[in-house]
Amino acid sequence: MPLLGLLPRRAWASLLTQLLRPPCASCTGAVRCQSQVAEAVLTSQLKAHQEKPNFIIKTPKGTRDLSPQHMVVREKILDLVISCFKRHGAKGMDTPAFELKETLTEKYGEDSGLMYDLKDQGGELLSLRYDLTVPFARYLAMNKVKKMKRYHVGKVWRRESPTIVQGRYREFCQCDFDIAGQFDPMIPDAECLKIMCEILSGLQLGDFLIKMAWKDVRHEMVVKKGLAPEVADRIGDYVQCHGGVSLVEQMFQDPRLSQNKQALEGLGDLKLLFEYLTLFGIADKISFDLSLARGLDYYTGVIYEAVLLQTPTQAGEEPLNVGSVAAGGRYDGLVGMFDPKGHKVPCVGLSIGVERIFYIVEQRMKTKGEKVRTTETQVFVATPQKNFLQERLKLIAELWDSGIKAEMLYKNNPKLLTQLHYCESTGIPLVVIIGEQELKEGVIKIRSVASREEVAIKRENFVAEIQKRLSES
Amino acid sequence: MPLLGLLPRRAWASLLTQLLRPPCASCTGAVRCQSQVAEAVLTSQLKAHQEKPNFIIKTPKGTRDLSPQHMVVREKILDLVISCFKRHGAKGMDTPAFELKETLTEKYGEDSGLMYDLKDQGGELLSLRYDLTVPFARYLAMNKVKKMKRYHVGKVWRRESPTIVQGRYREFCQCDFDIAGQFDPMIPDAECLKIMCEILSGLQLGDFLIKMAWKDVRHEMVVKKGLAPEVADRIGDYVQCHGGVSLVEQMFQDPRLSQNKQALEGLGDLKLLFEYLTLFGIADKISFDLSLARGLDYYTGVIYEAVLLQTPTQAGEEPLNVGSVAAGGRYDGLVGMFDPKGHKVPCVGLSIGVERIFYIVEQRMKTKGEKVRTTETQVFVATPQKNFLQERLKLIAELWDSGIKAEMLYKNNPKLLTQLHYCESTGIPLVVIIGEQELKEGVIKIRSVASREEVAIKRENFVAEIQKRLSES
Repeated sequence: MPLLGLLPRRAWASLLTQLLRPPCASCTGAVRCQSQVAEAVLTSQLKAHQEKPNFIIKTPKGTRDLSPQHMVVREKILDLVISCFKRHGAKGMDTPAFELKETLTEKYGEDSGLMYDLKDQGGELLSLRYDLTVPFARYLAMNKVKKMKRYHVGKVWRRESPTIVQGRYREFCQCDFDIAGQFDPMIPDAECLKIMCEILSGLQLGDFLIKMAWKDVRHEMVVKKGLAPEVADRIGDYVQCHGGVSLVEQMFQDPRLSQNKQALEGLGDLKLLFEYLTLFGIADKISFDLSLARGLDYYTGVIYEAVLLQTPTQAGEEPLNVGSVAAGGRYDGLVGMFDPKGHKVPCVGLSIGVERIFYIVEQRMKTKGEKVRTTETQVFVATPQKNFLQERLKLIAELWDSGIKAEMLYKNNPKLLTQLHYCESTGIPLVVIIGEQELKEGVIKIRSVASREEVAIKRENFVAEIQKRLSES
Repeated sequence: MPLLGLLPRRAWASLLTQLLRPPCASCTGAVRCQSQVAEAVLTSQLKAHQEKPNFIIKTPKGTRDLSPQHMVVREKILDLVISCFKRHGAKGMDTPAFELKETLTEKYGEDSGLMYDLKDQGGELLSLRYDLTVPFARYLAMNKVKKMKRYHVGKVWRRESPTIVQGRYREFCQCDFDIAGQFDPMIPDAECLKIMCEILSGLQLGDFLIKMAWKDVRHEMVVKKGLAPEVADRIGDYVQCHGGVSLVEQMFQDPRLSQNKQALEGLGDLKLLFEYLTLFGIADKISFDLSLARGLDYYTGVIYEAVLLQTPTQAGEEPLNVGSVAAGGRYDGLVGMFDPKGHKVPCVGLSIGVERIFYIVEQRMKTKGEKVRTTETQVFVATPQKNFLQERLKLIAELWDSGIKAEMLYKNNPKLLTQLHYCESTGIPLVVIIGEQELKEGVIKIRSVASREEVAIKRENFVAEIQKRLSES
């Protein structure tokens, strides 16, 4: 079939589809007749030239565009998260979207298969970043940074089967805060937990709890501090039954623990941590969880996860199954994996699950029928008459040059009603109106969209008047 | 060589390197002896277990990390750019970092080879986005949006040979503003040029000029409006000699043009555009350029580029060769390429070359020896005595909970001098100090780092006092 070689790539797909049709009546069924193939080839060639795009217009599987509505919600939430990170003295930084494949391998355990690799187009083998933690560790090792408190907001990519209904996508945003460096025990760890609490309280998502993985704590005590397993399990009974609140006090009232020197030593870090959390006023937000397990290979100590306790289900609101909305932990070994001499830089950090938070907030707004403005325009420049484009352009340039957010319609002669309707539908609060009357009198009319009140202001004072009104509102 | 199958991948590379050594003396040279191969295999296996990372720790070719210093400069510049976009009523949006490969093909002409493709890991064939314009057009077509004014700030990726000295990288940030929709001629076009001027003036980069590609204007006149080529060239003489300033007036004084009905018609759009640019007060910023040529396939009308006229070269400042710092144009056909029925949505837009602007600003700061703070911390919590960690933690939590940006050292017993030095080196303006004396008297000392003045404030009033000081500064 020499014809096939001439087909453009798109026509090929179309041809294949046609070849997969049931065989024609005159054929035996097992082999396709020549006439059918020839017909398919011709149809495909025609199609390739007639149709415009014969592929589906879509975003890649598991990804989506963020509309202006999405962006407004995101901007608000990210502003709150970032301002909390800055409140705790963190510096911003960014890393490339992709890393050398070798940088990422052997860091994520069984999840490594979910990495997006780039095609080998000559040169280095690359993969899209899978989280922001491994690039941070690579940055510290590469620049021999021994101490750093940084935040990083950026996209990461994972080839997971997307369950979009829960707000999980293959491309998503992460917001990380990490403290790298050798410090006195549990002080940075406590700050990470404090940050989680500040952000989750600030976002007003309802009640939440931070669950620490008991298995990891037990492992630390038994393997690293040499506590007898049965004593560790006795502590375990406590932390599960009583949560974190008055943990330390209660354990010290138990003679089996308080009279055991080894137990007291094993409890050291936990005691310290809860002491700091109490000073921060957040000890009641922390509890232990038997079932919580490490998600990623690089964690070396306690991991923690924040979960929303319940969502205030109002009438008509769908139940939200959002899982954890923040997570973090200690990873003291990761930087050393990049250092040629294996020099370690202890790290502790947290990641806010902003995508899930975006989803929750969007769902709530939908339920409540809340609308958001997707622009910030303050003033609209209108005219009731024809042939006023020039005057409108002069006015709007004055507004822009004074830093005022202003819009007008891109029409020579728009109808006044169309212009006013635009303001109402997009939420623009003020209109300035110029027409023959105003031009003759040397004034500009300022109209409040909400009250429909209009006042005439001298042309030379109109910007100042608008600035006054905007500062008052 | 069955041994080879057992080697881990990294050891393979090491083995290959060893096999490429000159052959040993006892061999003929043509074929490597068995002992040499066996030795190489063993050495490689050992190496793979002994050495930590035997690859170079780096970012991929043509990419780089953005340090906190970079990020501070970027944040300032992007804030200015985005606030200009919002001033003009644009909505924000975002698209995935990658698109279906088919979405991007046949949009960039010869540059298509510079796209980063993702590896075929089963499923769709994907490429990293090459600009923000094609994804925008795909978005409009996919959602059947006929009218939209949006901005988009995001990373794009191109496999160009990076000339890093000029600030060109394979991963870079674009800031785009576009107006899609059918409007009266030249109004949105003029606004795009106005936005370019506002941003370049606002950034205080020195004098600039926006050059329009004369070739494109001529093509529009001759091919689309039917103007005689010699008349178009007569206009061309004007626009090159006189720039854009009083262009229209001058041409109307030339009888060869003003008495030629065809010429007057051909000049229509140009006349309109300069009329609007004059009303916007920016006509003197626009001139024509014979040599300017379209960069990308999708432009359908006039393209324009903003160049810095000169950089104020101070003593010791390296000459900056930065090329264009903004570009834009009309692309009326791009959306139609995605629409199944070929429905067109006319578009005009601009892209700010923020990477080059970042580079210029960073170079100037370097020359002037300007330092930037990489954190925003307002208050540091210090102690002159040992065993005051608890008090410091309580104080800092109060500050955080009041929205004040605060830091302390993660040490149980830091030296006072170390603490004060930290404030000076990181630019923290205020210190609150708690020690035995203060605790006894129920006060907190507030110290100004600049003046070294200290005052004692009642413990219960210290947050209010700090808030007062911060609002005054």
